[in-house]
Amino acid sequence: MIGPSDVEAAWRLIQPHVRRTPAIELPAGMFGISSTLALKLESLQVSGSFKGRGAFHKLLASKVPAAGIIAASGGNHGAAAAYAARALGHRAEIFVPTIASPSKVARLKSYGAVVHQIGAVYAEARAASEKRAAETGALTVPAYEDAVVFAGAGSVALEFAEQTRFDTLLVAVGGGGLIAGCAAAIGETVKIVAVETEGTPTLHEALRAGHPVEVKISGIAADALGASRIGVPNFEIAQKLVRDSVLVNDEAVRAAQRALWEGLRVIAEPAGATGLAALMAGAYRPAVGERVATLVCGANTEPGSVI
Amino acid sequence: MIGPSDVEAAWRLIQPHVRRTPAIELPAGMFGISSTLALKLESLQVSGSFKGRGAFHKLLASKVPAAGIIAASGGNHGAAAAYAARALGHRAEIFVPTIASPSKVARLKSYGAVVHQIGAVYAEARAASEKRAAETGALTVPAYEDAVVFAGAGSVALEFAEQTRFDTLLVAVGGGGLIAGCAAAIGETVKIVAVETEGTPTLHEALRAGHPVEVKISGIAADALGASRIGVPNFEIAQKLVRDSVLVNDEAVRAAQRALWEGLRVIAEPAGATGLAALMAGAYRPAVGERVATLVCGANTEPGSVI
Repeated sequence: MIGPSDVEAAWRLIQPHVRRTPAIELPAGMFGISSTLALKLESLQVSGSFKGRGAFHKLLASKVPAAGIIAASGGNHGAAAAYAARALGHRAEIFVPTIASPSKVARLKSYGAVVHQIGAVYAEARAASEKRAAETGALTVPAYEDAVVFAGAGSVALEFAEQTRFDTLLVAVGGGGLIAGCAAAIGETVKIVAVETEGTPTLHEALRAGHPVEVKISGIAADALGASRIGVPNFEIAQKLVRDSVLVNDEAVRAAQRALWEGLRVIAEPAGATGLAALMAGAYRPAVGERVATLVCGANTEPGSVI
Repeated sequence: MIGPSDVEAAWRLIQPHVRRTPAIELPAGMFGISSTLALKLESLQVSGSFKGRGAFHKLLASKVPAAGIIAASGGNHGAAAAYAARALGHRAEIFVPTIASPSKVARLKSYGAVVHQIGAVYAEARAASEKRAAETGALTVPAYEDAVVFAGAGSVALEFAEQTRFDTLLVAVGGGGLIAGCAAAIGETVKIVAVETEGTPTLHEALRAGHPVEVKISGIAADALGASRIGVPNFEIAQKLVRDSVLVNDEAVRAAQRALWEGLRVIAEPAGATGLAALMAGAYRPAVGERVATLVCGANTEPGSVI
């Protein structure tokens, strides 16, 4: 199981290639939240989401064959893998389910990747990508179920902790890459709270069952949080270090997207507003004096869709 | 003529009420620009633009009568005055020209202000506001031609200089409030470059003439940069401390808005992308090793309009 030193090493490796994204501190009362709130605008990361960190780490830490890299993704990981591959001079083939948004597919192509749209859900796209990788010998870049990938993702938590002080970090969960990385990075000293939509409760259900379980995926965040099962090494870390797991409904996510635009002029995709949604909807209620923080972890959406 | 200590005093006064907005550093090559680039996301300021700083300073530094405050504005200053008035418990009446965007008018009303839409251009709305202020005794909050207002605006430059190092700061110019404040704050040590659109060249024409002149206003940035004459104390500072004045066309502004979204997931209104447009279009060309910076100074637009 990886820990802070692994995430620190990943951060050093990727630092020349990724952005130090801004953090902003907001006073109590903002967004109707009783406590002060720190937001990290990881949506401004290269490729438009936190996934850039993990993708660069995987490619920098691996020997990439001439066949290049292959990734399967609801969109953001694919964009990150394609972006990193281009930046580092590798070929990229990306497999996405057919529900991936047009803007995400266009983005992949703009990064020079070959895009395959296959399957109704993420798992089907992933199966197709594995078959293809076996044929070509390309390096598979897993979306989340890989400690090298999530060690890179966790660098966002180290950077955030360096920028501002907080007691509690709310993290949106899909396949569990971001939360595993954040928990590995700072989970011993900061309270990590998992937030999922009611339609994508992969970690919530796994924590109830005591092991990863298959979940039926639906709703507003399905394309980005729509892994149907939490990753195994991800769950191992989450079970040990995630202190609370809450759910929000799709309307709460929409309200958080609107609030980020109306109150702060920040665009977030649904997954990127999920942490804030938990605070605004009261799914997570800070104690008096508790300093809460969350990541706006992606903005790969049509900007006009948030209002 | 105000100087750095006046801006510092203004900053101390407004600090409890405004946000410390994020800065982000981008590597050479980003947006096709040859130098490194620092951007300050002042678009995330309260009320959606830098105008929040000046409005708070005016209200905090003045005795506000029971009749409250009156402002005339292409939109952003009105929003800022209305926001500050509500925050500090004062009544607000805002006069805007009929070309003000629907989103800006809706914003004013959401802040509790009484909105008067009068006149085709800013000057007519302003004349109506002055008549009304004479009737009611309300405090007029000038949009830019007021050293108290632009001392507040200039705090953005002090804050930016505290966050990152740069040799040159490109500043969008409408009536000259932002650039007068920035020049007063840091113009002795940083090269200040004025950027205007070809349709709103109030400072450019004043510098050529040697005094403020009336300019015919048109184009994409007319609603926010559309003052038809540079302010008198503003020009006095600009003439002394602004080292270069460049123009960009509307297409360059649109390209900069798109680039901010595509490359950084940041939304800017046309005026907010004007500084970046000058760098992307080559209207201002940095020397080798010159560290340039610009302000994304507002985002009060429909988010879907930028792509």
